[in-house]
Amino acid sequence: MSFQKLDELGRKLEALEHALAILGADEATHMAVGGGEKRAEAMAALAGMLHRQATAPEIGDWIEAADAEDLNEDQQAALREFRRHYANLTCLPAEFVERQTTARMRSEQLWRSLREKNDWAGFLPSLENVVALVREEAAMRADRLGLDPYDALMEQYDPGNRAADITPVFAELKTFLRDFVPEALAAQEERMAERPLKPLSGTYSIERQRELGLALMTAVGFDLTHGSLSVSHHPFCGGVPTDVRITTRYRTGEFLSALMGVLHETGHALYEQNLPAEWAHWPLGKARGMAVHESQSLFVEKQIGRNPAFWAWALPMVEKHLGEVWSIDDILPHVHHVGRGLIRVDADEVTYPLHVILRYELEEELVSGRLDVADIPEAWDARMRDYLGLSTAGNFADGPMQDVHWPAGAFGYFPSYTLGAMMAAQQWAALKREYPAVDDELAKGRFETINAWRREKIWARGSRWSTPELMERATGEKLTARYFTEHLRQRYGA
Amino acid sequence: MSFQKLDELGRKLEALEHALAILGADEATHMAVGGGEKRAEAMAALAGMLHRQATAPEIGDWIEAADAEDLNEDQQAALREFRRHYANLTCLPAEFVERQTTARMRSEQLWRSLREKNDWAGFLPSLENVVALVREEAAMRADRLGLDPYDALMEQYDPGNRAADITPVFAELKTFLRDFVPEALAAQEERMAERPLKPLSGTYSIERQRELGLALMTAVGFDLTHGSLSVSHHPFCGGVPTDVRITTRYRTGEFLSALMGVLHETGHALYEQNLPAEWAHWPLGKARGMAVHESQSLFVEKQIGRNPAFWAWALPMVEKHLGEVWSIDDILPHVHHVGRGLIRVDADEVTYPLHVILRYELEEELVSGRLDVADIPEAWDARMRDYLGLSTAGNFADGPMQDVHWPAGAFGYFPSYTLGAMMAAQQWAALKREYPAVDDELAKGRFETINAWRREKIWARGSRWSTPELMERATGEKLTARYFTEHLRQRYGA
Repeated sequence: MSFQKLDELGRKLEALEHALAILGADEATHMAVGGGEKRAEAMAALAGMLHRQATAPEIGDWIEAADAEDLNEDQQAALREFRRHYANLTCLPAEFVERQTTARMRSEQLWRSLREKNDWAGFLPSLENVVALVREEAAMRADRLGLDPYDALMEQYDPGNRAADITPVFAELKTFLRDFVPEALAAQEERMAERPLKPLSGTYSIERQRELGLALMTAVGFDLTHGSLSVSHHPFCGGVPTDVRITTRYRTGEFLSALMGVLHETGHALYEQNLPAEWAHWPLGKARGMAVHESQSLFVEKQIGRNPAFWAWALPMVEKHLGEVWSIDDILPHVHHVGRGLIRVDADEVTYPLHVILRYELEEELVSGRLDVADIPEAWDARMRDYLGLSTAGNFADGPMQDVHWPAGAFGYFPSYTLGAMMAAQQWAALKREYPAVDDELAKGRFETINAWRREKIWARGSRWSTPELMERATGEKLTARYFTEHLRQRYGA
Repeated sequence: MSFQKLDELGRKLEALEHALAILGADEATHMAVGGGEKRAEAMAALAGMLHRQATAPEIGDWIEAADAEDLNEDQQAALREFRRHYANLTCLPAEFVERQTTARMRSEQLWRSLREKNDWAGFLPSLENVVALVREEAAMRADRLGLDPYDALMEQYDPGNRAADITPVFAELKTFLRDFVPEALAAQEERMAERPLKPLSGTYSIERQRELGLALMTAVGFDLTHGSLSVSHHPFCGGVPTDVRITTRYRTGEFLSALMGVLHETGHALYEQNLPAEWAHWPLGKARGMAVHESQSLFVEKQIGRNPAFWAWALPMVEKHLGEVWSIDDILPHVHHVGRGLIRVDADEVTYPLHVILRYELEEELVSGRLDVADIPEAWDARMRDYLGLSTAGNFADGPMQDVHWPAGAFGYFPSYTLGAMMAAQQWAALKREYPAVDDELAKGRFETINAWRREKIWARGSRWSTPELMERATGEKLTARYFTEHLRQRYGA
């Protein structure tokens, strides 16, 4: 039986993915510094085995044959995802993948050294090569999947997301934010004039911050029998659903950045820990995509973790673990701070989408060929001035050279961040329609209702539906910017 | 070129071994408790891939063809080990391996539950099945390798070790110990009558004990850029040569057991960290075998770590980290404590070999068929009375059911422990002939001379020679019990 063969294949691939996930998390947390070279060799070899096993020609035959078999509903859904994965993995000839991998690795390495030197001219040929290959890649993916080239790239990260749907939503959001950013900044000025910002600085040992983080993350729903918190240079959520590894980094002079990092990664972790276990060895059992994943982390970080009701409950926890007594009026100006800046990863939730929309617009033009790589800095600067009133003229390091995505050849990924933010707001609004008292629950540190809703609507569904369908089923309507803009207006408006 | 194919195969196998080693160490140290089932599935699948890739039929052809190729000396040595590994791995038909694996797993699980209940009769049929399969296995290995059956089993753990060589050495050691154990116990009584044992108990935080362990292990030569120390239920040395994971376990009421554990595992780790890196992806680059590995751990734990000269240097370190001031006369009676007991793993270095010799004698008789499984308890009890003056009549849990080795089907392994102890003493004696002042260096906490000798004689040689040849080249003579008995007499005699 062909479905049986796919099922067995799924278990083999799961084993290799398990190894890669744990080795990757271990590398960033517990590996000895001198172990990196052999670790890289081992992971490259395992990734090669995984790719070869996942793209073997007979799999295509099994998928076709399984179509005629008597499958139950879950198996039919599993088969759809096997087919989608296989198609996405086999779009590109091996020769092309090797050429592209080499080009991306070189470009990423070059970027690391040239970004520090603000050397755009030195980096340009390498990025041009990467973009040329991405255009080739997009054409091949488009051809195989019957999609537009940019859509075919996004399809890797969020199945079903289409530029034709996203562009108008982003346009609406952009229009809103152009007016709203100055309004939010003025409102913040006014509040700070009335009540100056109280610093939250002090000396907070890593051990105490860690205990505070553990207390909050477990309260929010993180299952410590299926995961752990440790330290790494860049926070991440990794591991496997039965053993989710999240990390943060600590500064002893303040506690908020590490804690918000813990909450963000907890959001990712809850999704992984609550995926349907019985489908774990099928693509169907995986998280739906990057935008949905980001919606889960932002749900916890922004909708819950920056909600004033949450802080009514969290402040006594902070006092218990750090020994500091702050009022809600002390903490909220920090949790809700807004500022214009050049760097995406440092941006707050109000300005962040403008950074993403800028990249979305440029990368779509790059992929289509309407923008040349050499013209990126000018286009970047023009949009930065337009959207945020800041110039990056001559400042490539804090402009188009700030992100690893393009040097690494990842085009079509950026929209996920802001799609996730909008989805999180739309999910929160849907939840609140159904359970209007949800803020009161937050204020008591109760997350059962919230998590039960999320489990049923998102987590338990794995990859059963496309990203847009999952959102529509969960919230009762298509993705819209409205809930996100309402959320921003309510939290940051005058 | 066929050698090239073996070289490439070696890199693939190394990647899978790397994954298994890190996943195994991670399981015992950092894995979430609920992650065990999926981890076991992943590791079983990876072990299956490793076995299939390492036993592919074409490898036999490559080995034959490589024989005719123009290879340098290292490559010739590598080819010998490829051949040896391949022969050992392909002795048994796949059908037999599966049957045996199932029988071993059942027997080991049964043993875990029945040992607690002292239920020998309930366990007997399962062990009889395991022993029947071991006899089959030994016959097949013997046939393929041209060895006696028990030698063919030992060959898996220590290439070149033969019962014909070991039995007389063990016989000499046994004769010595039968007289010496009472003598050592009497001498200890006399010393304690003169100077009562001073307890070393107190309250020592895990953090301080860990720092003491790190200070001593790094002084002894452990490279923290290629390894780490963490905590697990059973201490072990795992990981890979570029990232060696050692563990210990702490009791806060005393520090010596955790510390001696750290020193023992450091001995294993030094061997791994100093194996020839350029051969790491060949079997040639691996540690020679279990007896040699044990000689390296016992070298550090017993020859160095229980040497009075070592404590002259280590006591100030203990004072610095634990704040306790003890004299050498306080500490040595603990470090050199001797006692008769039923349990092998709790035995001291004087009585331990008798536990091993008992098992060696019985398992050789079991494999040859001269002893029936049903008669083990009687034979065990008779020998325990004879060697240590203790009875295990009716006490199966502390008699033949105490070890996991036989339930798990590992016959031919036990001798490694005492061979390692003898080898360590012989290595120490050879080193001391060459550098008579080595005790003075210990007393100063200097390990350069000792480690340079070990690197040249043992570590850098990987698997170039058989175990007996490695020993003879390192120490200038064949394995003998003499240095070990001299060591015991000098340390524990009247």
